[in-house]
Amino acid sequence: MPATPATYAFLGPEGTFTEAALMQVPDAAAATRIPASNVNAALDLVRDGSAGAAMVPIENSVEGGVTATLDAIAGGTELRIIREVLVPISFVLVARPGVRLEDVRRVSTHGHAWAQCRLWMDRHLPTAEYVPGSSTAAAAMGLLADDCHYDAAICAPLVAREQPGLSVLAENIGDNPGAVTRFVLVSRPGLLPERTGADKTTVVVPLPEDRPGALMEILDQFASRGVNLSRIESRPTGQYLGHYFFSIDADGHVGDARVADALAGLHRISPNTRFLGSYPRADGQETAEEAHTSDAAFAAARAWVESLLDPASEAAESASAASPTA
Amino acid sequence: MPATPATYAFLGPEGTFTEAALMQVPDAAAATRIPASNVNAALDLVRDGSAGAAMVPIENSVEGGVTATLDAIAGGTELRIIREVLVPISFVLVARPGVRLEDVRRVSTHGHAWAQCRLWMDRHLPTAEYVPGSSTAAAAMGLLADDCHYDAAICAPLVAREQPGLSVLAENIGDNPGAVTRFVLVSRPGLLPERTGADKTTVVVPLPEDRPGALMEILDQFASRGVNLSRIESRPTGQYLGHYFFSIDADGHVGDARVADALAGLHRISPNTRFLGSYPRADGQETAEEAHTSDAAFAAARAWVESLLDPASEAAESASAASPTA
Amino acid sequence: MPATPATYAFLGPEGTFTEAALMQVPDAAAATRIPASNVNAALDLVRDGSAGAAMVPIENSVEGGVTATLDAIAGGTELRIIREVLVPISFVLVARPGVRLEDVRRVSTHGHAWAQCRLWMDRHLPTAEYVPGSSTAAAAMGLLADDCHYDAAICAPLVAREQPGLSVLAENIGDNPGAVTRFVLVSRPGLLPERTGADKTTVVVPLPEDRPGALMEILDQFASRGVNLSRIESRPTGQYLGHYFFSIDADGHVGDARVADALAGLHRISPNTRFLGSYPRADGQETAEEAHTSDAAFAAARAWVESLLDPASEAAESASAASPTA
Amino acid sequence: MPATPATYAFLGPEGTFTEAALMQVPDAAAATRIPASNVNAALDLVRDGSAGAAMVPIENSVEGGVTATLDAIAGGTELRIIREVLVPISFVLVARPGVRLEDVRRVSTHGHAWAQCRLWMDRHLPTAEYVPGSSTAAAAMGLLADDCHYDAAICAPLVAREQPGLSVLAENIGDNPGAVTRFVLVSRPGLLPERTGADKTTVVVPLPEDRPGALMEILDQFASRGVNLSRIESRPTGQYLGHYFFSIDADGHVGDARVADALAGLHRISPNTRFLGSYPRADGQETAEEAHTSDAAFAAARAWVESLLDPASEAAESASAASPTA
Repeated sequence: MPATPATYAFLGPEGTFTEAALMQVPDAAAATRIPASNVNAALDLVRDGSAGAAMVPIENSVEGGVTATLDAIAGGTELRIIREVLVPISFVLVARPGVRLEDVRRVSTHGHAWAQCRLWMDRHLPTAEYVPGSSTAAAAMGLLADDCHYDAAICAPLVAREQPGLSVLAENIGDNPGAVTRFVLVSRPGLLPERTGADKTTVVVPLPEDRPGALMEILDQFASRGVNLSRIESRPTGQYLGHYFFSIDADGHVGDARVADALAGLHRISPNTRFLGSYPRADGQETAEEAHTSDAAFAAARAWVESLLDPASEAAESASAASPTA
Repeated sequence: MPATPATYAFLGPEGTFTEAALMQVPDAAAATRIPASNVNAALDLVRDGSAGAAMVPIENSVEGGVTATLDAIAGGTELRIIREVLVPISFVLVARPGVRLEDVRRVSTHGHAWAQCRLWMDRHLPTAEYVPGSSTAAAAMGLLADDCHYDAAICAPLVAREQPGLSVLAENIGDNPGAVTRFVLVSRPGLLPERTGADKTTVVVPLPEDRPGALMEILDQFASRGVNLSRIESRPTGQYLGHYFFSIDADGHVGDARVADALAGLHRISPNTRFLGSYPRADGQETAEEAHTSDAAFAAARAWVESLLDPASEAAESASAASPTA
Repeated sequence: MPATPATYAFLGPEGTFTEAALMQVPDAAAATRIPASNVNAALDLVRDGSAGAAMVPIENSVEGGVTATLDAIAGGTELRIIREVLVPISFVLVARPGVRLEDVRRVSTHGHAWAQCRLWMDRHLPTAEYVPGSSTAAAAMGLLADDCHYDAAICAPLVAREQPGLSVLAENIGDNPGAVTRFVLVSRPGLLPERTGADKTTVVVPLPEDRPGALMEILDQFASRGVNLSRIESRPTGQYLGHYFFSIDADGHVGDARVADALAGLHRISPNTRFLGSYPRADGQETAEEAHTSDAAFAAARAWVESLLDPASEAAESASAASPTA
Repeated sequence: MPATPATYAFLGPEGTFTEAALMQVPDAAAATRIPASNVNAALDLVRDGSAGAAMVPIENSVEGGVTATLDAIAGGTELRIIREVLVPISFVLVARPGVRLEDVRRVSTHGHAWAQCRLWMDRHLPTAEYVPGSSTAAAAMGLLADDCHYDAAICAPLVAREQPGLSVLAENIGDNPGAVTRFVLVSRPGLLPERTGADKTTVVVPLPEDRPGALMEILDQFASRGVNLSRIESRPTGQYLGHYFFSIDADGHVGDARVADALAGLHRISPNTRFLGSYPRADGQETAEEAHTSDAAFAAARAWVESLLDPASEAAESASAASPTA
C-alpha cells in the first residue's frame, strides 16, 4: 500500500469538482491541498516532490483537462494512478445576496459547465449573456470582487456551501441529472495499491506499426487472457498526425496472473508500453473470473511447462514406471 | 457528390481556426457563413435546414469541442461527415496599436490556446495574468471594446489579418510549431462524396455487451477485411457509467467492397451501429490495398458463392462434362 | 434436391460396411450397385457418368480409404457430397459350416478390422495366424473357394446374413462396441440437397502462404460468423512436403447466409478453395444459431449498407425530415 | 540429449520403409531391432521397457498405421517423440529369379502400395490380379515360400537389396516419383532433444467445449506468439462421435520461450493437453523468428512485469529521481 501523502495537489482553483474528488480521499481533509492552474502543473508538483499525489480529472470532466491528463500522464517522468474517484456532477446557480433570478443578465462559468446547463438556461434565463470563466469556482469567487461585470455564476455545490457571501438561486440545473465524473489520484511510482478483487489497470501502448492487425494484436493480449477493457482511446503521439498510442483501462490488477501475463505480452509487441497503475475501481464492481484465467490456472500451466523442461523432475516421475533397456 | 451548400455554419465566432478550416472549402468564401456559439448549435443549424453544412473541430482542437462533436454527431438525427480539413495551428499575440510587449499585464484567450502557449508566455511574459475567453477570436475582438479589462490576446493569424485595429506583437508563439488540428464538414444524409482512393469512413458502434471479446469482435470486422483503423475511442453512452460506444475512423470508403463488408459485419453484431460518412482524407494518403481485399476479390468471391447456390448456372457449366446415368 | 441416381458405385466388394452404408439410401436397394476396387475407381465411375453417385468411407473406416477419399475428392474434376451416412461397426467371425472355434488356426480379414478385434482374438484365439485380406467381405467370400488356405474370416454381419455357406462362430467381437463409421455419398455437381437446419458443409482450402496467421485467417472466416467446425485436417498438397491444404467440415448449409458469407471470405483469401457440398448431417443434430448470425441479421445488414450506398433511397428517406437550403 | 537406446522397436516386418527410416538413426544399425506387428505393439515395447525407442509412421504412410500412431501416442502412458525421419518412397517389382515381366499373373503387396503403383500396373500389367499382403516386405518374402500363390511383389528397394533369392523386374514404379514419408522415433519421457533452431513440437489438445471459437482460442495460443503450425488434425476422442481432440505440429522447441508460453496457454484452456515432444525437423529448415517473439523479448517482458510487482526494486529505481514529501 502506498504511503499516505501529507501534501496533495489538485486541478484548482479551490471549490471545483476536482477538489470535491480530493475530499473523498480519507486523509485529504487534514492534509495540505495545493491548487494548480492546470493538469500539467498539478502533475509537476508530484514529479518534483512538492506534493505526494495529485487529483486530476480523467473523463467527461466539467472543467476540462481530460485530454491533457491522458497526455500528461503518458509522457514525461513515470507516474502511477493509485486511486479512482467518482463525483456526481451537480450544478447550482449562485449570486450575491439580494440578487433575484429575474435580475440576472450576465452569467459566468467554465465553458464545459455552460454547455451542460444549456437546457435549464434556455428555459429560465433565455436572454442571459455568457461570460467565460477559467473554472466554475473562479466564476463564483469572481462575484465577490468589486469590479465584477456579471451577476451570477454556475458552480459546484461545494463552493456555494463553503463560501460566505454567496446565495444559491437554483440547484440541480444540469441537463443530465445523473452525471458523474471520474478523477484519478496520481503519485510517483512506489508500492502498488493492494489487490481488492475490484481493480482497474491503466496502460499506455504505442502502436508498433501502422498496419491492419497491430491494434488487434494489442487487444488480443487482453482478450486471450479473459481481461475485459472498460476504456480505450487512440491518441496521436504528437510527433506527426497519423501515428498513435492507445490509452487503455483493463479490469483487474497487475497482481492478477492474467493481467501480468497480458502486460508481458504488450511489452513484447510494444516495448515502450507504459504502466500507469493498478488501483481499486471507484464503483467497487468485482471482476468476473473464469476458471481458466484464474491465478491457479496460470500457476498450474507454468508448473506443467517447467516439468517438461526440467529433465530431472520429469525423469524422477517416470522412474517408477519402467526401467528402460538402455 | 453532395450538392454544394449555399449556407455554412461553423463553430464561431468569426476568426477562429474553425472558420479558417471552413475557408479551405472551395466555395465557402462566397457562401453565407453562420457562426454558432457551440458545436451542438452548429449541428442543429444543419439538422433544421438553416445551413447546408457545418464545420466543427473533431480532434485536438484549440477551441475545444471535440468531445461535444463526437457525442453530438453520434446522437440525434443522423448526420454525415462529407469532408475533412487540416489546419496548421499557429498563434499570434495581438494588441491595440501602440501597445508594446512590455506593456502587457493581462492576456485573454481560450483556455486551450493558453495551455498551448505556456512556454512562450513563461519566457516572454512570465508575470502576465490570464483572463479566460470563450474563444481565441472573441478574446481578440474584445480588445476593440471600450471597457476591455485586458491588454493583449492570443488568437489565430486569420483574425489579426482580417480585423483592422489590431496589431501583432509576436507570431508563432505556440509551444508546438508543427501543430495541426482536424475539422470535419457535416451535412444531412444525401449523396456520398465520391471515392478517391484516399478516403476515410467514420462509424459509431455501441458495444453490444460488456464481456471480454465484444470489442475484439467489433475490431475484427475491420482487421479480417484488411481495413486499417486510424482512430478509436470508447465513449460512455451517457446512460450510466460503464456502458460504452466506440467512435472509429477506418481507412477507405463504404464504396470499397471491403469497407462495405466490414460495415455489414458491424451491423450484425451491433445493429445500432451508425454510419457517419465516407469522405476524402485531408492528408491525401492513399489506402494500401491487398489483392485479397480488393473489389475484384470480393466480386469474384460473391460470384463463386452464387454459382454454388444457383443450380441452373452450375448445371449448365457441368452439363458439357458428362451425361449422367440418371 | 439432386435427382435420384439409377446407378450407384461403392467401395467394394459386396458385403462391406460401405455397401451397408449405401443400403441406407432409400432407393439404393432397388438400384444398380457397382462395387469398385478402390475409392478412386468408385469416384471415377461418377466422374465419367457410369454411376450417378458413389458411397465411400470418409472417417475412421474399417476398410481404409479415408485418406484416399479426402485426397480424391479434393483433386480432379469437381464432385459434391450429397449425403452422409453413419454405420455401426460390428464384427462377426465366420467359417464354413462344421468348423468350430477351437479348429481355427488361420484368420483372414482387412488389416484395419484385424486391428479392431485384437482384444477378442488375444482372449479367444491367441495363437491364430493372421492372413491379410483386401477387404472384410473378400476374406469372408474366400472361405467358399476350394483352395482357401485359412479357416475363418472377420467380416460385417451383412455378409454373414446374405451369403449362404457361411456360419457365424462369434458375434460382436470388436474391441469398441459403440464404434461407428462415417461414409459419404458423392455425385457430380448439380442441385444441392435442401436445407434441413441440421446440415454440414465440407470445403477444401489450400493454405495461401506458410506464415503464422494464415490458418487463423481461414478459421476466422468461420468463427467470426458463428459457424462451428466439426472436423479439420491439414493435408500435404502432394507437391512437396510442408505445403498444405485444409479439409474442413462446418456446421450449416451454404444456403445459410452465415455459411455463404464465410465461404466468400475463404474464396478471397484462398481463391482455389473448393466446395465439396452441403448436405444433411447423419446425426440430425440441429445447428444452434445466434441472433446476430441469422439469415435475417445478414439480410438487415446488407440492406443497411445498400441504403448507405444508394443515394436515391436515402435521399428519399431524409426528404421528409427537412428541406435543405442548398 | 536423450540417452541412446540399445534396442529399437519398429513397425515390421523387416525390410519395410519403417525399417529404412530406423536405419537412418546413427546407432540403429548396430543396435538390436525388434519388428512389431502393428504400431500399438511397437509402442508397447517402449512402454514396458523392452525397447528404448520405436520407429513408427506418422504421415502418408505406404504401410498404413498413421491414424493408429496418432491415437496410440495420444492415449495411454505418456511417450515422447525424439526424432523425425523422412524416407523417399520408391517401389520395385520383384520376383523369383527367372520370372519375366510377361509371366506375372498375380501380384502381392500392401494395399496402400498397390494404390500408389496403379498407373504403372495399368500400363505394364493391366490384367494382373491383386493379392493383399500385410506389408510390402511380407509380400516380397512370401515369394520365397514353397506354396506361394502369386508371382511377383511390390516392395521397398531395401528388401530387394538385402534379400538373396529375389530379382528386380522393374524399379521406380510408383506413380509419384517424389513421394516421401514421415516417421517418428518414440521413447519414454526423459531428457528432451537439444534445441537446434530447426525444431518441431507436437501436442495433443482436447477441445474444451464444442462451441464456435474454442478451436480459435487454441490456435491463437500459437498465432499470438508467432508460432507457425505445420500440421493440424481433429480426431474424434473415441468416446462418442462429435467430440474432438487436435493433434498439432508447431515450429520450434519447448525450450523456445514463445513455444513454452504457447504451451502454458494451451494448458490453461485445455488442462489435459498432452506434450508429445520437441525434436529436430527432418528437413532441417530453420524456424524464422521475429524480434518480438524472441527469447530476449520474453525475458525483457517478464523482467518488466516483475519490476512493476516488486516495490523494492522499483522504489530503488525511482529513489534517485526525487524525494517525496510524504
